[in-house]
Amino acid sequence: MSELNYRFRDPALAQLALTHRSVGKPNNERLEFLGDALLGAIVAEMLYEVHPKASEGELSRLRAQLVNGQALAVMARELALGDGLKLGPGELKSGGFRRDSILADAFEATVAAVYLDGGFEACRETVRGLFVERIAALRRSSKDAKTRLQEWLQAKGLALPQYELIASHGEDHAKTFDVSCSVTEPLAFTAEARGGNRRAAEQDAAEAVLNRLLEQQRGA
Amino acid sequence: MSELNYRFRDPALAQLALTHRSVGKPNNERLEFLGDALLGAIVAEMLYEVHPKASEGELSRLRAQLVNGQALAVMARELALGDGLKLGPGELKSGGFRRDSILADAFEATVAAVYLDGGFEACRETVRGLFVERIAALRRSSKDAKTRLQEWLQAKGLALPQYELIASHGEDHAKTFDVSCSVTEPLAFTAEARGGNRRAAEQDAAEAVLNRLLEQQRGA
Repeated sequence: MSELNYRFRDPALAQLALTHRSVGKPNNERLEFLGDALLGAIVAEMLYEVHPKASEGELSRLRAQLVNGQALAVMARELALGDGLKLGPGELKSGGFRRDSILADAFEATVAAVYLDGGFEACRETVRGLFVERIAALRRSSKDAKTRLQEWLQAKGLALPQYELIASHGEDHAKTFDVSCSVTEPLAFTAEARGGNRRAAEQDAAEAVLNRLLEQQRGA
Repeated sequence: MSELNYRFRDPALAQLALTHRSVGKPNNERLEFLGDALLGAIVAEMLYEVHPKASEGELSRLRAQLVNGQALAVMARELALGDGLKLGPGELKSGGFRRDSILADAFEATVAAVYLDGGFEACRETVRGLFVERIAALRRSSKDAKTRLQEWLQAKGLALPQYELIASHGEDHAKTFDVSCSVTEPLAFTAEARGGNRRAAEQDAAEAVLNRLLEQQRGA
């Protein structure tokens, strides 16, 4: 069980954040819109700080792991938000207070309620308090791009990627390296990346390939 | 031509925000990730304030009109961000400083740079200054849901929607109305909504139908 660690000046805002649309209007849908956006920004900043070398794609991937509906429902349960939910009769009967989507929405709406009640710094501190351990845990468990690409290919019974040094530029004290990462048929895709050392360039190239493969898989 | 109305303490941050990935690393991709999220939150708050009756779906739709790549590229041009862009040789040759996606990314990255340089309030003021007129203009031109649904159906040569009062509840001084909005074959979809007056309920029902039709159109 965790705690919000925020005390509302206006308890009606906290209550509105827990009012499902099945009750009628006003409900928490507008707050959810605002809270979703605030949460995205505050978690983005945390990841930006904690992962100073991560690419934009990597940061997006990490954030999606933290703020998807299922993850937010878990956090809502830890805060026992379900106990305070106001639901219409239909949702009450069918156990809406246990449903992931309703809980996740209530969590997002609560973030917006803190913002409107106490301002950005209060909201930021509250969200940071709730996410700091999760972000640290994710960081400990997160694998580098080369490892993830290798595991993805192995799981599909495909050949391992090939890394090649294409060129290096500059004087010894400020050398950069161009590296390619290729996967063979049936995927047949190559990406190139430049880095201050060969390993960093390989990681970036691997991530570019992996992102492309995941996009293809999603049918994009 | 508009102005950012923000003076950087650390000009290197402003410069980084205009450094495209074609230059190598460091570049503005990580800032773009952060700026995109901040922009989403600050514009969400503005719309939340300006449209106190808009539904979540309506707020999302309005935001998408304001912060899509094309709209941000227009704003980047107004700020003349293209003049400060740092591009690699390939992008320079092919006129990357004129490309929408590169300009939009630079705009988002600049928002993050203001945040990191001056804090949330400075960033919020800057973004609000840039969007306030656009949001007011959008508000003046925005049509209600019933009008948009009607226009959408007419453009496809389809029959107009039917609105029906299903029930009304409560005492005269606090009556609520249940209304349905239906579209006929081949779409065949009905949504219901409840409101404090019939017109408001019809608007909500029309918006639910329209959102559903737009989702279908996108193949969701």
